[in-house]
Amino acid sequence: MTADIHQTAPTQFVEANGIRFAYRRFGKSGGVPLVFNQHFTGTMDHWDPAVTDGLAKQREVILFNNAGVSSSSGEVPTSIDGMAANAVTFLKALGLSAVDALGFSIGGFVAQEIAGQAPNLVRKLILVGTGPRGGEGMATLTPEAQQIFRATYDEPDHLWLAVHFTKSEASQAAGREFLKRFRLREENRDPEVNKEVAPAQLEALSKWGIRFNRSYDYLKTIHQPALVVNGSRDVIVYPINSFILQQHLPNAQLILYPDANHGSQYQYPELFVRHVSTFLCGEGLTVERRSA
Amino acid sequence: MTADIHQTAPTQFVEANGIRFAYRRFGKSGGVPLVFNQHFTGTMDHWDPAVTDGLAKQREVILFNNAGVSSSSGEVPTSIDGMAANAVTFLKALGLSAVDALGFSIGGFVAQEIAGQAPNLVRKLILVGTGPRGGEGMATLTPEAQQIFRATYDEPDHLWLAVHFTKSEASQAAGREFLKRFRLREENRDPEVNKEVAPAQLEALSKWGIRFNRSYDYLKTIHQPALVVNGSRDVIVYPINSFILQQHLPNAQLILYPDANHGSQYQYPELFVRHVSTFLCGEGLTVERRSA
Repeated sequence: MTADIHQTAPTQFVEANGIRFAYRRFGKSGGVPLVFNQHFTGTMDHWDPAVTDGLAKQREVILFNNAGVSSSSGEVPTSIDGMAANAVTFLKALGLSAVDALGFSIGGFVAQEIAGQAPNLVRKLILVGTGPRGGEGMATLTPEAQQIFRATYDEPDHLWLAVHFTKSEASQAAGREFLKRFRLREENRDPEVNKEVAPAQLEALSKWGIRFNRSYDYLKTIHQPALVVNGSRDVIVYPINSFILQQHLPNAQLILYPDANHGSQYQYPELFVRHVSTFLCGEGLTVERRSA
Repeated sequence: MTADIHQTAPTQFVEANGIRFAYRRFGKSGGVPLVFNQHFTGTMDHWDPAVTDGLAKQREVILFNNAGVSSSSGEVPTSIDGMAANAVTFLKALGLSAVDALGFSIGGFVAQEIAGQAPNLVRKLILVGTGPRGGEGMATLTPEAQQIFRATYDEPDHLWLAVHFTKSEASQAAGREFLKRFRLREENRDPEVNKEVAPAQLEALSKWGIRFNRSYDYLKTIHQPALVVNGSRDVIVYPINSFILQQHLPNAQLILYPDANHGSQYQYPELFVRHVSTFLCGEGLTVERRSA
């Protein structure tokens, strides 16, 4: 137990399968830690301290860069399967026997695969701004996403105002607050990802997004209690995909936030932290009732 | 302020437009009261004290029977419009200038119409197990609902095990607890509704359910912050209708609960009370952010 928070937690390293994984751990230790799986081209510094520190008050939080991303060595696999295998390698290298897994966007694909590959390692799942294999509009980047990622911005960070927030005044104002927060950490920031990351991640997410017969069947095998969260106006991964996840997972709760794009959890960080905390504490959920 | 709770609150009466409305008020007074709009053939006694008393800890709760239902006089209108007009009459007769409106099932249709007819009277909306005009499978009772309402049961109350809960062991166990709770009030219970109620309500809900061109457009005019809640396996009003409500209302949050049928709020009463309380307190919601 240290007094570290998002801004101060040192970047640590653990080596396994020839990969040197960069990670940061902070918060209240002793329970099941919550592991964060990041979005397309993101690093540990792209998480919102209002969310990570908010959740760290009641549990240990682990951020990490998967193989090939930023301060981690190795190569980015061109499949979600491969990314999940690397994540499992990392978690086992830390000696963890149980984690809660949060995944955002492509990190949500990875979190689903982690649950599939290592069902006994994952206690609960939190799937944010994400979707199922072969979901709606997921075989390629959506038209809106293509436009957003191709555009140029006055400041590079402003890409995230377009990705994570809607065009409404309230959402953009929340976005500017988010950008301030994610720049709060000044020392030992992660390097931006290299040029090989985006193409490999794009290949992986495109393969994941291909519709096939009974694409959603695999969700029936993910028995962990899951919380599915999205913005009601997500143009990167359409919110119908969150509804599909919830309908096909055996034990999932769905929460959609109003007037929010891909980064709904950054638009409503306090509300998100409260909802996630309630979910992780398990109150009122069927599985708790069964075991009571 | 009285010490009344769900089981002890006396049935009171107020007369307006020639109708004698029966109602009960309890909980913490002084703020915006929360008014409950009941489901098909239900009376004030069909609410769950775990929900009403749970919410009454932080606000005043008002239960009532709309015109023609149980202990209220008058006739049940054959349109949702007419029911909403009667509800507005009732609320104005109590001298209320602002309420939060919760509606369950057909009561959710009524709550939407109340917001449309008296937008300045309604501060926030909670729409449970309900849907939009012309929603999916709403022009008639769903096949599952027809089967459930036509069947006979060992005990009449067991109808609600089939309506409100799924067939899973955990859900049925929660249902039996619900039935115990809603029988806790022993004195001054409402009489069951008379035989004219079901046909009139059926006519009203069938008209509401008819799909027409741009059926959902009216939702754009309901600007109140709304919380839409349903069970993921609701066979009475399919959960896609909750998704549709959320997508078309300008400022709505959606919560779907796992392994739950029409009465998800009775399966997870503590979780529902917590989610509703968070919503009504407004934390993290756009409208609060705007006015901050």
